Amino acid sequence: MTHGRKFHHDAIIVDGLQINNWSRAVLQELISGGVTAVNATVSVWEGIEESIRAIGEWNQFADRNSDIVTLARSSQDIRRAKTEGRVAVILGTQNTSLYGDDYRLVRVFAQLGVKIVQLTYNNQNSVGGSCYEPTDSGLTRFGVNVVHEMNRAGVLIDLSHVGDRTSIDAAEASASPVAITHSNPDWFVSSPRNKPDAVIEAVTSRGGVIGACLYPNVVGGAHAQLSDFCQMVYRLAEQVGIGHVGLGSDCTRNWGDEFVEWLRSGRWRPPSQETATWPAWPHWFTGPEDFPRLTEGLLAVGFTETEALGVLGENWLRLFDEVFPEGGSRDGGIVHDRTREPA
Amino acid sequence: MTHGRKFHHDAIIVDGLQINNWSRAVLQELISGGVTAVNATVSVWEGIEESIRAIGEWNQFADRNSDIVTLARSSQDIRRAKTEGRVAVILGTQNTSLYGDDYRLVRVFAQLGVKIVQLTYNNQNSVGGSCYEPTDSGLTRFGVNVVHEMNRAGVLIDLSHVGDRTSIDAAEASASPVAITHSNPDWFVSSPRNKPDAVIEAVTSRGGVIGACLYPNVVGGAHAQLSDFCQMVYRLAEQVGIGHVGLGSDCTRNWGDEFVEWLRSGRWRPPSQETATWPAWPHWFTGPEDFPRLTEGLLAVGFTETEALGVLGENWLRLFDEVFPEGGSRDGGIVHDRTREPA
Repeated sequence: MTHGRKFHHDAIIVDGLQINNWSRAVLQELISGGVTAVNATVSVWEGIEESIRAIGEWNQFADRNSDIVTLARSSQDIRRAKTEGRVAVILGTQNTSLYGDDYRLVRVFAQLGVKIVQLTYNNQNSVGGSCYEPTDSGLTRFGVNVVHEMNRAGVLIDLSHVGDRTSIDAAEASASPVAITHSNPDWFVSSPRNKPDAVIEAVTSRGGVIGACLYPNVVGGAHAQLSDFCQMVYRLAEQVGIGHVGLGSDCTRNWGDEFVEWLRSGRWRPPSQETATWPAWPHWFTGPEDFPRLTEGLLAVGFTETEALGVLGENWLRLFDEVFPEGGSRDGGIVHDRTREPA
Repeated sequence: MTHGRKFHHDAIIVDGLQINNWSRAVLQELISGGVTAVNATVSVWEGIEESIRAIGEWNQFADRNSDIVTLARSSQDIRRAKTEGRVAVILGTQNTSLYGDDYRLVRVFAQLGVKIVQLTYNNQNSVGGSCYEPTDSGLTRFGVNVVHEMNRAGVLIDLSHVGDRTSIDAAEASASPVAITHSNPDWFVSSPRNKPDAVIEAVTSRGGVIGACLYPNVVGGAHAQLSDFCQMVYRLAEQVGIGHVGLGSDCTRNWGDEFVEWLRSGRWRPPSQETATWPAWPHWFTGPEDFPRLTEGLLAVGFTETEALGVLGENWLRLFDEVFPEGGSRDGGIVHDRTREPA
């Protein structure tokens, strides 16, 4: 695998989502795994002030580790980071709670570098429905305004935990392509977090990308096989086109069990009687260090090198070029003004 | 009408909702109209911190006008205020935005005196759907926890601007009777803000009260007649039982047009191109001073004096006795513990 190792090392590897407890050691895991860029979750349940503070902490962390990491606000920032040998972190959130009730905060947070935002986490909110909620409101009136403002401010819309109806509504309402950063098709593993064909089609037919996900619950648990996962990615690429598939590991490095309890219960219900625990990961992918194995696995199931480069990162980069190119979006300016002012 | 005036003066008059820009002059309008108690809106779109600040302002305002007003936290506080000749103000909100994403804030705000809370204002939120939203999610998983915590903390659930499906879900989920503080039946005037029979039935059959509303948009505009309004109340009492009908004027005294724009657009959309304006009120009810006219009107359409006393205030007071009696609820303690801990 000498060729494979060099091939992986030269490739642009983009991870659609990681939700680590970030530290220098975790950054070194990404470097060890050859990861070029990652959408790093800044907040999930957190509101406006908490999210602002989390960005303050990220700025400080990036300053202290500026030899190996840089905060990226545009696709060009990612390409530069690759040449500099630094990991490019795109700040993202898994909820719109950071926007509170104010669509104008979309642009404010874009100015602070938050360029990928999931419309809902696990609960229905004022923007739309979640994949775990018994009923999905669809994209609300406020949600339509948030989507249009995300288009204008160059923020990528993420639908991974979003309900099916809201996902399709958002894909249709958005002037820019949208993403599923970390989910699998539900024909691979049946789970509320995986997506039916109609949602995948709504995203990818409009230029979006779906990031195949390694989180144990969406691959069938710790006994899932690398070859099965890679064959799923292959079949998905046949289904939606090779340019519309990426990876989104959903890595959760360096957390204790109290964090998975927080993710599940937030402040919307009391903590479980027995604290939730993290699931075990497949032995072939336990963290960002294992990205080279995915490259091997993708080549082994029949992807050409060019196709593999697409899945590993170029497809995400092409989408980022469309949604937050260098220029307007860098300072949170207006990128896509094809939409009307929200009304 | 000498008898009528004395009858009105002696009665306990409870207004289910007013959203005034409160001042001493406005309090004097209530006194002039013989109003004993009012659910006063503290916040609508405001979040946690803003709502806390609004309560701070209310405390200060009540201190400065303690000769004519008192903040009530229990039904007994209202009876005491009547004997003292002071207006009893129950702090309320027209949204659950004050709770943020945390059901535990139900009790915190109850400790601060917020005893009547509408689940949604005009937009879908994380608790449920609104009467103005194209789709209603129903009561969400977080919403169920909020309802149960409102039961435990002795907070009256208000469904006036809530969507029909969420309203019925909430009435069914609540261990305590619930209210529609300020809406009419939609057989009187067709409006998203008025209620179909199924919603009215869900509320009143479980011991709740509907407050017939004077806001121009829900009575058919400024040309509505007092006798038509009072006949509607009479027919409504026949429909749901005389013990389940009250009044909720929705008075909006002392505001400029910028406030109606805020109510309509909040921060969820840009202000209208032409600022919204307040509708004109019927000449026979332009503010709290006109409550005696309602008493006359109710007696004129055939209510007995006992029945009229129920509609004017005793029915609200009976509901408040059930939901926030003196004792546990006064300090935000647990009143109805028939519900499980939210799960």
